[in-house]
Amino acid sequence: MAGTVTSRLKLGMVGGGQGAFIGAVHRIAARLDGKWELVAGAFSSDPQRAAYSAAELGIAPDRAYADYAEMAKAEALRADGIDAVAIVTPNHLHAAVATAFIKAGIPVICDKPMTASLHEAEELAELVSRTGVPFVLTQTYTGYPMVREARALVGSGAIGKVRHVQVEYLQDWLSGPVEQSGQKQALWRTDPALSGDGGCIADIGTHAANLATFVTGLGIIEVLADLTGFGQERRLDDNAAVLVRFESGAKGMIWASQIAPGTKNALRLRIAGGRGGLVWDQEQPEILELTLAGEPTIILRRGGDGVATPTRVPAGHPEGYLEAFATLYGDAADLLAKTTMTTHAANERVLPGVHDGLLGMRFVAACVQSSTKGGQWAEV
Amino acid sequence: MAGTVTSRLKLGMVGGGQGAFIGAVHRIAARLDGKWELVAGAFSSDPQRAAYSAAELGIAPDRAYADYAEMAKAEALRADGIDAVAIVTPNHLHAAVATAFIKAGIPVICDKPMTASLHEAEELAELVSRTGVPFVLTQTYTGYPMVREARALVGSGAIGKVRHVQVEYLQDWLSGPVEQSGQKQALWRTDPALSGDGGCIADIGTHAANLATFVTGLGIIEVLADLTGFGQERRLDDNAAVLVRFESGAKGMIWASQIAPGTKNALRLRIAGGRGGLVWDQEQPEILELTLAGEPTIILRRGGDGVATPTRVPAGHPEGYLEAFATLYGDAADLLAKTTMTTHAANERVLPGVHDGLLGMRFVAACVQSSTKGGQWAEV
Amino acid sequence: MAGTVTSRLKLGMVGGGQGAFIGAVHRIAARLDGKWELVAGAFSSDPQRAAYSAAELGIAPDRAYADYAEMAKAEALRADGIDAVAIVTPNHLHAAVATAFIKAGIPVICDKPMTASLHEAEELAELVSRTGVPFVLTQTYTGYPMVREARALVGSGAIGKVRHVQVEYLQDWLSGPVEQSGQKQALWRTDPALSGDGGCIADIGTHAANLATFVTGLGIIEVLADLTGFGQERRLDDNAAVLVRFESGAKGMIWASQIAPGTKNALRLRIAGGRGGLVWDQEQPEILELTLAGEPTIILRRGGDGVATPTRVPAGHPEGYLEAFATLYGDAADLLAKTTMTTHAANERVLPGVHDGLLGMRFVAACVQSSTKGGQWAEV
Amino acid sequence: MAGTVTSRLKLGMVGGGQGAFIGAVHRIAARLDGKWELVAGAFSSDPQRAAYSAAELGIAPDRAYADYAEMAKAEALRADGIDAVAIVTPNHLHAAVATAFIKAGIPVICDKPMTASLHEAEELAELVSRTGVPFVLTQTYTGYPMVREARALVGSGAIGKVRHVQVEYLQDWLSGPVEQSGQKQALWRTDPALSGDGGCIADIGTHAANLATFVTGLGIIEVLADLTGFGQERRLDDNAAVLVRFESGAKGMIWASQIAPGTKNALRLRIAGGRGGLVWDQEQPEILELTLAGEPTIILRRGGDGVATPTRVPAGHPEGYLEAFATLYGDAADLLAKTTMTTHAANERVLPGVHDGLLGMRFVAACVQSSTKGGQWAEV
Repeated sequence: MAGTVTSRLKLGMVGGGQGAFIGAVHRIAARLDGKWELVAGAFSSDPQRAAYSAAELGIAPDRAYADYAEMAKAEALRADGIDAVAIVTPNHLHAAVATAFIKAGIPVICDKPMTASLHEAEELAELVSRTGVPFVLTQTYTGYPMVREARALVGSGAIGKVRHVQVEYLQDWLSGPVEQSGQKQALWRTDPALSGDGGCIADIGTHAANLATFVTGLGIIEVLADLTGFGQERRLDDNAAVLVRFESGAKGMIWASQIAPGTKNALRLRIAGGRGGLVWDQEQPEILELTLAGEPTIILRRGGDGVATPTRVPAGHPEGYLEAFATLYGDAADLLAKTTMTTHAANERVLPGVHDGLLGMRFVAACVQSSTKGGQWAEV
Repeated sequence: MAGTVTSRLKLGMVGGGQGAFIGAVHRIAARLDGKWELVAGAFSSDPQRAAYSAAELGIAPDRAYADYAEMAKAEALRADGIDAVAIVTPNHLHAAVATAFIKAGIPVICDKPMTASLHEAEELAELVSRTGVPFVLTQTYTGYPMVREARALVGSGAIGKVRHVQVEYLQDWLSGPVEQSGQKQALWRTDPALSGDGGCIADIGTHAANLATFVTGLGIIEVLADLTGFGQERRLDDNAAVLVRFESGAKGMIWASQIAPGTKNALRLRIAGGRGGLVWDQEQPEILELTLAGEPTIILRRGGDGVATPTRVPAGHPEGYLEAFATLYGDAADLLAKTTMTTHAANERVLPGVHDGLLGMRFVAACVQSSTKGGQWAEV
Repeated sequence: MAGTVTSRLKLGMVGGGQGAFIGAVHRIAARLDGKWELVAGAFSSDPQRAAYSAAELGIAPDRAYADYAEMAKAEALRADGIDAVAIVTPNHLHAAVATAFIKAGIPVICDKPMTASLHEAEELAELVSRTGVPFVLTQTYTGYPMVREARALVGSGAIGKVRHVQVEYLQDWLSGPVEQSGQKQALWRTDPALSGDGGCIADIGTHAANLATFVTGLGIIEVLADLTGFGQERRLDDNAAVLVRFESGAKGMIWASQIAPGTKNALRLRIAGGRGGLVWDQEQPEILELTLAGEPTIILRRGGDGVATPTRVPAGHPEGYLEAFATLYGDAADLLAKTTMTTHAANERVLPGVHDGLLGMRFVAACVQSSTKGGQWAEV
Repeated sequence: MAGTVTSRLKLGMVGGGQGAFIGAVHRIAARLDGKWELVAGAFSSDPQRAAYSAAELGIAPDRAYADYAEMAKAEALRADGIDAVAIVTPNHLHAAVATAFIKAGIPVICDKPMTASLHEAEELAELVSRTGVPFVLTQTYTGYPMVREARALVGSGAIGKVRHVQVEYLQDWLSGPVEQSGQKQALWRTDPALSGDGGCIADIGTHAANLATFVTGLGIIEVLADLTGFGQERRLDDNAAVLVRFESGAKGMIWASQIAPGTKNALRLRIAGGRGGLVWDQEQPEILELTLAGEPTIILRRGGDGVATPTRVPAGHPEGYLEAFATLYGDAADLLAKTTMTTHAANERVLPGVHDGLLGMRFVAACVQSSTKGGQWAEV
């Protein structure tokens, strides 16, 4: 078995025990391209659930931890210690867990949003910068081949100077008062103590903002947000209407909503540039609509003619969310394989890192501030 | 021939001579259902062009006028005078022409926006109210069967209380500096003297706002607009990002743009309600996507199962823009046939009238004011 | 009124009285572009219904006929007689009515299928050929701008030599036993005495075959058909599976069905050529998907960049079925205006004529013969 | 590491060395759900390439075989021998490899088509039946959740008795003479010695036929095929037009083509039943359009409201081809875990087995026979 093991990086996980959604997604993503092996974990803050989850996942008993701090210390000491830890806890624990592993010198792959508050994000960014321990933030949508193609197209100047960026990110799972019936996801995502000040704006608004900046390469300098909690007795926003101004003079709008009936995970991007425009839709992620000035619209397809971004299977064999996620894990493996002395962030090439996480938290904070003041412009 | 003539209403037209786009559309719309006969016109301010256009359209020489004021007077005196006048001039003439005909007691069918300034709109609304002469505003998109179906659905409470209304109205014809090459449409639509203070926001933003209020039945109370003229040396906005607040507490966003490459006339509406939602797209006007809470999305089709709005041809035989326009003319004919002593506006049932035109101008004025102040909330 | 009248051609109509679908469609189509005026008609074989329909349509009493034969004679004698007659009766009357008018020297605009039997079609074609009286067959779908664009593209060699032509024409209105509940359309369309030997294959299969030959310019030489009547006690086919061989060696398939739930008028064409391919869908008629070998798919839009076929309103303002139909009437007007000594058929340029009608009937006869023999190849 | 290993089944592979497409797909599919570990292989008939591929895949040297027969024997003798072998060689080797492993008592997971000739398929089916060794055929498309949902819907009687089944499976990669430039896939797939008598009909036509029978549960009794090789000097068909008759009296059509420009892997199914119909498209695999008689069309979404089939991630997070493939591997693992004394085929529940493979080969043989005779009906 030595051959098998040596060819793979060793992954640990914090959070993601039985019943958790995103933990299972990270595990599939890590497995898909065969570059990672899950060997250790602190899967739950409940020791019994942690042990049971570990056994179910085939983790050796001596690497099934009840506590993330203990795990960080123990793995750092092992000769065959983990090459990275995946953090898939609820948001309010991200900062503490990440800090523990970074201090132990163990690279981090962290789910988004990076932290629950801007303050935590700033501290974490500073720590990562100071220590130089690699930090990857799983902004999933940046892993889609046609999103990367879009970024390359914009970067090449194909559509000219960016003028307007429109992003919609719509879901409907909070349309009803689901948190009142004890649904676990809804409970923590609508609780300021566990999620931070932002509800929908933090949970999915950050993805929307990240997608806009990832594809255009432009920083957001100002936002004006109208955040609303439409759900009965809901304490956080479930609908966010945001105007955006980019550093270059480009304008933008983000509509993020979790109360839009008929939508599941409808993330859609349209960019209008001076010489062309493009459209991408996460629920039909295989195509990118490109229009150059004065020409008919072209349908670019993953793996198809005229598309440069590499991919796994040929055009017409749909790849999706799990493959996009797996691409981030694959890139992370390549990054770690190449370097133990890597720079302080994962942002070389296209992999999102601590800086992206910090920007996301600044975006959320600015939106919350703007909205709290009744809808005034706020700097990001 | 008497039989033919008596069954149709007599229409006059001001504007719409050779080369004009919207005049030809009004003529087709008036003809399509066989309820109108074009019998008189002042088709151009250039007398020779006016006469030539009239001859080409088969207008009898004695009813081909060089001047709209003269036409209003002459037609009011004829026993067989026109039943209504269609106003299809550039925006800055709407108010003067409409005033002349209303004072002559002749009903008006006016293209939008109703006037070039809010002041004109207020005066016109007052005049129409005082005289009781019927006034129809051709907000074309309200003539689509599935838009009317959407309005009926929302009105019935099917999707619950409206929470968020999202409208995009995108075109790309001003992406380049077309006005610099003398394109006629671009010239007057980008000239404040002919179009008023609003560019894109007046030309198509009004349609977007009208669609939102028409379908939801909710008034807009506040807007915050970020208007931009991206075109080189362009004096009016060609891109409008607008946050909207409705009287009921509902929120909304409008993105109107004439610099979005790959779009032609992409008017799209999504409404999120407490018990369901719907989506309509002007470029695929035959369907309405309806989702009721906890159920899969339903595709309602014009003329199809579960759809009540009456129509001309069966489902699957696409109707479009000209039919929607024709429906407004048909409704106008029905309205005039029923009543000479009609109320002061065409707003009975679903036909847009002077009040809608006034609201449109207030919307434009508020957006311009909001944007001029750097993006502050402005009352509508 | 003289001016108005002289600029329009005078149209008569046989059939199309109250409650008829296709008669109303022909009238809208004739009116839409302002080139025709309906002035005479024998709208029903029931004299009272004929008179009532005529009055409702504003036809002068002396031109409201109870009988088509009388109408043909009378109109031929009038100085202001009709320029053409539209035949919109049930199929089994087409031949007799057309014959009467052609013998009277009056041009014919005939709904499809041209006749109820191949024998009638051959006689009619011979008569039209001998007399030289213009004859137009309203194969509606040939009037769509993007169908004409497709024909031009194929003709130009853009997609290379045609290899395979796939046509689906699907409806669902005969899924249930509607004829047993007395629905008028269903009654005559499922009755061999009124419709001829072909049911679905004649009613819509002919459109499918015509679309294939119109766009490719290729003749069908052989068919193999499996016709089925799935409806309870139905005497004619409601589902047709047909293999096609073209003169050039190209292959094809036609699936025509009136029992395909969820479809309304789903006519769809795909052509595979040696250097490219294209797709057109009648329910989204504004676009044509074009792929050239080794390049991404292009979306051509009516009125848009890269599209040559002329049209009424700009791209993004949807045109549909009625506009396509109106284009045939407009072309017919142009044809008649140009020529009284025209050739024996309307097939100059793109307007379908008696030859297309004859081919359609040969196609139906061959399909019926093939299927009756259990599914053997039959020459067309 | 013991924990990790014991929880997974051990997989061997024959074929799928460097540069092979389908081998890599099988490996991802096996890995994705964490139920399999690849531990042995004979990856190429070229010993050096076999060894190199094995090393690259992390296979221990003693389980990297140069020869599949040797591998079957050796693995059967090991205490920790493989639980199943995946066969991903070119078609003409499937039968020999499968036979070797089945005789060694090792379960087989075989890519399709099952064999290169009907004779081989019959022998293999007989062997599997006699030995009772489990045999799974990776008819990938049966692994899509919405295909299984469709099968369940049809089986429940929701759409009534099936009347017509339409399948299109279109690709464009053989549009040009790619085999003449030495492209590896094209070379063996167009060579009768390596692929058998059927080209396109075997490669993708079998998928189309399998999808039709899988979803409807109906057997095909007769086919009439018109197979054509349009490619220059091509020795096998690249385009197949097939009429189908099912045992129940239902009709069907299959168009399979590898010369349809603009298509990549466009597998599309439409079923018309007596009380409803449905549509599924492999390139948008997340939705299933369902229409019940007299009601509007419903869009069923994987993981969404009204959908019973279980799945990995929530609706709106697109799953695709690799997940469908992984589902077959997951089902195979469940099957093997449950039983060493399993029945002679994998066809319990929904997993395709040797019987499906045999039917596929009978379908190909009947199509080839039908076409060779000029297009006559042939029994399957």
